[in-house]
Amino acid sequence: MIAPWIELAGVAVFAVSGALAAGRKSLDLLGVVVIAWVTATGGGTLRDLLLDRPVFWVERPQFLVVALIAALLTVPYVRIARPPEKLLELADALGLALASILGAQVSIALGKPGLIAVVMGTITGAFGGLLRDVLCNEIPMILQKGNIYATAAISGCTLMVLLLHAGIAAPVAAAAGMALVAVMRIAAIVFGLTLPVFTLPEDRRP
Amino acid sequence: MIAPWIELAGVAVFAVSGALAAGRKSLDLLGVVVIAWVTATGGGTLRDLLLDRPVFWVERPQFLVVALIAALLTVPYVRIARPPEKLLELADALGLALASILGAQVSIALGKPGLIAVVMGTITGAFGGLLRDVLCNEIPMILQKGNIYATAAISGCTLMVLLLHAGIAAPVAAAAGMALVAVMRIAAIVFGLTLPVFTLPEDRRP
Amino acid sequence: MIAPWIELAGVAVFAVSGALAAGRKSLDLLGVVVIAWVTATGGGTLRDLLLDRPVFWVERPQFLVVALIAALLTVPYVRIARPPEKLLELADALGLALASILGAQVSIALGKPGLIAVVMGTITGAFGGLLRDVLCNEIPMILQKGNIYATAAISGCTLMVLLLHAGIAAPVAAAAGMALVAVMRIAAIVFGLTLPVFTLPEDRRP
Repeated sequence: MIAPWIELAGVAVFAVSGALAAGRKSLDLLGVVVIAWVTATGGGTLRDLLLDRPVFWVERPQFLVVALIAALLTVPYVRIARPPEKLLELADALGLALASILGAQVSIALGKPGLIAVVMGTITGAFGGLLRDVLCNEIPMILQKGNIYATAAISGCTLMVLLLHAGIAAPVAAAAGMALVAVMRIAAIVFGLTLPVFTLPEDRRP
Repeated sequence: MIAPWIELAGVAVFAVSGALAAGRKSLDLLGVVVIAWVTATGGGTLRDLLLDRPVFWVERPQFLVVALIAALLTVPYVRIARPPEKLLELADALGLALASILGAQVSIALGKPGLIAVVMGTITGAFGGLLRDVLCNEIPMILQKGNIYATAAISGCTLMVLLLHAGIAAPVAAAAGMALVAVMRIAAIVFGLTLPVFTLPEDRRP
Repeated sequence: MIAPWIELAGVAVFAVSGALAAGRKSLDLLGVVVIAWVTATGGGTLRDLLLDRPVFWVERPQFLVVALIAALLTVPYVRIARPPEKLLELADALGLALASILGAQVSIALGKPGLIAVVMGTITGAFGGLLRDVLCNEIPMILQKGNIYATAAISGCTLMVLLLHAGIAAPVAAAAGMALVAVMRIAAIVFGLTLPVFTLPEDRRP
């Protein structure tokens, strides 16, 4: 069982990433909080809507409180110090690992097949950041430039599903899945790995 | 109890604001209607999805009819006359006050805590306009430039929740909340008030 | 009764259109798959959420599989050959006809009134493409330039609803509705038909 404070820490990390994105767009304080909330809870919200279950933060508003505090602390912090970007990216990688595997587990617990678990895990991990970018009027970061982000979530959730099918105990499968997400994401950051980009040849564009 | 025609009037005002935004983007007649519908019903729709209750306009399609008529009347009107902008902003402020307080009441009636009521009220009042701006490919107006819009909704819903906790009768608390939303929004329009903008210092941008 | 393979073919056509749009934006392979899935399933997903019923692809993941295969085949294909644009537009017109009428039927089967059936049918047919454009950071194609797309869906669904009210047998009404959608859309493509564009006069813009 995941300790509740780890879930809350994952939400806080995503909230900080949202607040920083909002800062880059010169939004006001409210905009910062909204973008932070959307970034932190958007993935789990869409998962819960698609799975027709109660939305997690409506049931447990403490997630909103933690994301609010994280966002409000980000504002004065960047006034006095440079954001610790590498540390943030590391924390975000761990947040992604945690959120995607937890999201996949929710789907599995409802008896959905493996493909749905992978999709729900990836949505839980990556959809908040996608919404953040759409609200900030940018092409979603996770969809461009061969960025290995959702790919890491997909890989880790797939590994967990395969291990569960092979009869591995759930906690072991979850730990392996989380490790794969985190390692892939961190390797992508450290070594600058990317996926091949698919571009329509110029003379064949519709 | 709010008279049904007031709810319908609130939807109509939001629909006109959506139709005007669509006109600025040179959309066709269908685009005008779609943007008007999304602006008018988007907030209540998201609230109902998040609270896992039937979507209000699916249950009561007359909301769609009113928004459709309002949007279609807007098109010829602006051909022959300048839109009465100040009157529209005033009407929009009243629509915001009504929608946000009604949205918060829906959440409270379901037994949700105060923070959720404030979030749901704000979503009901402000999310339609946010969707309008995303569809028109703009950074949402409510998130930029220190604009006091959602802030007014948050303040009014918070006031109502606090008054209810203090034992004030529901109609009085609702009236006070609506008054605060409308006064804040109108004061922001009349005096050009804004919230402080949060910008990352140039040399610290991630 | 619609044969299941036709529904799957409709999803595949929408997935190809999403993959081509992603190619125009230089997204990576994952981005192509995500945009293809969103384009193919977005309309039915929103319909199911709004109607408070289980999301169709969560219940039947084969829709995701078909869309995935269609998207992955699109990538190498456009490397070696020009996309058959006219054929694609024709297939898309048939996909639109099928998706919108099926979407309207779902709503009617739940006992919703005719206006809701038209809205749900149009959402099923056209919302996926709208999401595709928002994710690719463009003003949705269906909302601009007088493009007859959602208009075709609205017309066909309205015809079906009217025929059903007139006592026509359901399969006949559905066939007539589908034919109208397809004919309107194909006529718009072939003859370049558009709806009148609504623009605010320059000196009256708010």
